[in-house]
Amino acid sequence: MSNLGPTYSTRPVLRVNLKTLKQNYMSLQKLVGKKTKVAASVKADAYGLGAHRVGRTLYGAGCRTFFVATAGEGKIVREAVGDNASIYVLNGPAPRDLTLFFGSQLKPVISSMIQAYAWADATKEVKRPPYSAVHIDTGLNRLGFPDDEFEKLVTNKKLFDRLKVDHVMSHLACAPDKTSPFNREQLQKFRKQSSRLPVLPLSFSNSAGIYLGDAYHFQLVRPGISLYGGIATDDPSQEVSQPVVSLMAPVLQLRYLQTGDKLGYNSTFVAKTEMLIAIVGAGYADGIPVIWSSSDEGAVGHATLQKRRVPILGRVSMDLTALDVTGLKKKPRIGDWAEFLGDNLESDAHAAKTINYELLTNIGSRVRREYV
Amino acid sequence: MSNLGPTYSTRPVLRVNLKTLKQNYMSLQKLVGKKTKVAASVKADAYGLGAHRVGRTLYGAGCRTFFVATAGEGKIVREAVGDNASIYVLNGPAPRDLTLFFGSQLKPVISSMIQAYAWADATKEVKRPPYSAVHIDTGLNRLGFPDDEFEKLVTNKKLFDRLKVDHVMSHLACAPDKTSPFNREQLQKFRKQSSRLPVLPLSFSNSAGIYLGDAYHFQLVRPGISLYGGIATDDPSQEVSQPVVSLMAPVLQLRYLQTGDKLGYNSTFVAKTEMLIAIVGAGYADGIPVIWSSSDEGAVGHATLQKRRVPILGRVSMDLTALDVTGLKKKPRIGDWAEFLGDNLESDAHAAKTINYELLTNIGSRVRREYV
Repeated sequence: MSNLGPTYSTRPVLRVNLKTLKQNYMSLQKLVGKKTKVAASVKADAYGLGAHRVGRTLYGAGCRTFFVATAGEGKIVREAVGDNASIYVLNGPAPRDLTLFFGSQLKPVISSMIQAYAWADATKEVKRPPYSAVHIDTGLNRLGFPDDEFEKLVTNKKLFDRLKVDHVMSHLACAPDKTSPFNREQLQKFRKQSSRLPVLPLSFSNSAGIYLGDAYHFQLVRPGISLYGGIATDDPSQEVSQPVVSLMAPVLQLRYLQTGDKLGYNSTFVAKTEMLIAIVGAGYADGIPVIWSSSDEGAVGHATLQKRRVPILGRVSMDLTALDVTGLKKKPRIGDWAEFLGDNLESDAHAAKTINYELLTNIGSRVRREYV
Repeated sequence: MSNLGPTYSTRPVLRVNLKTLKQNYMSLQKLVGKKTKVAASVKADAYGLGAHRVGRTLYGAGCRTFFVATAGEGKIVREAVGDNASIYVLNGPAPRDLTLFFGSQLKPVISSMIQAYAWADATKEVKRPPYSAVHIDTGLNRLGFPDDEFEKLVTNKKLFDRLKVDHVMSHLACAPDKTSPFNREQLQKFRKQSSRLPVLPLSFSNSAGIYLGDAYHFQLVRPGISLYGGIATDDPSQEVSQPVVSLMAPVLQLRYLQTGDKLGYNSTFVAKTEMLIAIVGAGYADGIPVIWSSSDEGAVGHATLQKRRVPILGRVSMDLTALDVTGLKKKPRIGDWAEFLGDNLESDAHAAKTINYELLTNIGSRVRREYV
């Protein structure tokens, strides 16, 4: 098939730059200084990038604490980073997950008295049970001990000791907005509540929280999106991280439209002039959102080809997307790569009316992860 | 952990009802009658349901023709269904995929002269190369031979013979809308163009096309969404398929909100009265779209608990979603399942301002597939 580029497959590719990932980790570590360690949030398959390779890379950069959502995710990270690291499971312990917790030495994050009693029970006859963390809710009202239950925990020293707590955490609600008074309210509450427990390493900040300043750093910070190159706050000029991921789709076919020709499902696009279209092999099953389909008002989503932004035309379909390549200097070849995300992650998220996080976690399992 | 339900894990679950899947296949077969065979579109991991189990189940129901998007998907289906079935790869042949095509006897769908020459070349010295299909574009302007290239194919008998074509297809643009005149235009063009090739089995209709009537059925129809329980047309009353999938998220924590309490990221929800909230273990990484977050105007997305619809409150996060369970008769227990999709797939898609297809293909890889 010599007339097609030799590296061309119809399968889309997510290019993950592990060097930049490592650099982002180092930049954040430099930012918080020596008194604070940088942990990594690698939940949801490291935000779609692949928890195994991301975990190993960050371990290589010095990371020794990882946060996942479920015990199944914890097992994958344990296999990637070896025994010399802490892995906390944010969504807590559960009966069906106990073998995973014990088998992979995962530390549950305890968020309620029900969980505290359950974990204490479950570990009663285990020889060397994993340590655990306590999550204090300070106003997000998602997971974490509410005030009344925290009161019960603090006054039940026997139970607390049985949990073998080695870390205390909370989570910010409005960290991207530096001006929100709620950040300081949560900080004060976290200080107050955590001071009622024995002295233990504390963590409070996600990526955005890091940029709120030293007072928010404590002993550990838990960035996610900043490691993966996404903007975390309302003031990107402050941020240190660089783009890590590009979603690449191969050009499968080129076609000319004549004036009046319709394109895609529901014929939502009609050519007003002669055009050259590239059909690329990635659709909403791969992470190109349907909402990027062009509307009556014009283009919504874009890709990058030959270093130029080219608009998506018509409806994004499950496995395919049509790009207007009329304006490019060179006619693309079959097998050329169209790039999504990359340097344009933020504007791409804006066009999808969602957050950069969701674009990353929606990248489909069919997409081959390629680490460079 | 006896105070937590024994079957409870923090991992969300996609329940796939294979019996209903089989029934949907049979209903569609009955609808099109004996002269037409029902193939299955199992691309994008069978729309997120799992191509291996779906492929096997449909094979058991009598299906002998499958359509996938990429060769990698074809390999998975081949392993599931054995040698006695045709598997067509819609996105065509590509140099890097040749070993998959030959190794798993996959049939490429040829959409252009470039592909035709490339496939003829690639199979020149292969002993028993797979058959192929020809895709004629009839106005969708996505993949498929454009008129000028089709002219070249028709007049190059030598090339055509080398492709060993055993199937000719096209694809509808506006099938959900029975009243669209474009359906008939495409049909006429498909008849005209296909008549210029040797007599071969033809396929034209996706799920929606089936409901356009006998004239659209030919020898083979290629439903996808109708197999998986999604509505395919603008007139659901006509349709025969039943719901197949439910996305289940376990209740991880219950919490009371007092008047004025904020909930979730950016504190977008503020309680106007005392409320009971269930935090469930699934978020946008699992397929609960961010756009289901509640807005200033009220709830957007819902789940089902105790057979009642309960609204999502605040921002959907990556691994967690908050539900208002104040109005339920019984207080939910930890480990109870909240259901998304299921009987509400269509209204759920409407709330997400997208199509049922995208809700299915966005179900994350962390979600355990459970077949019942």
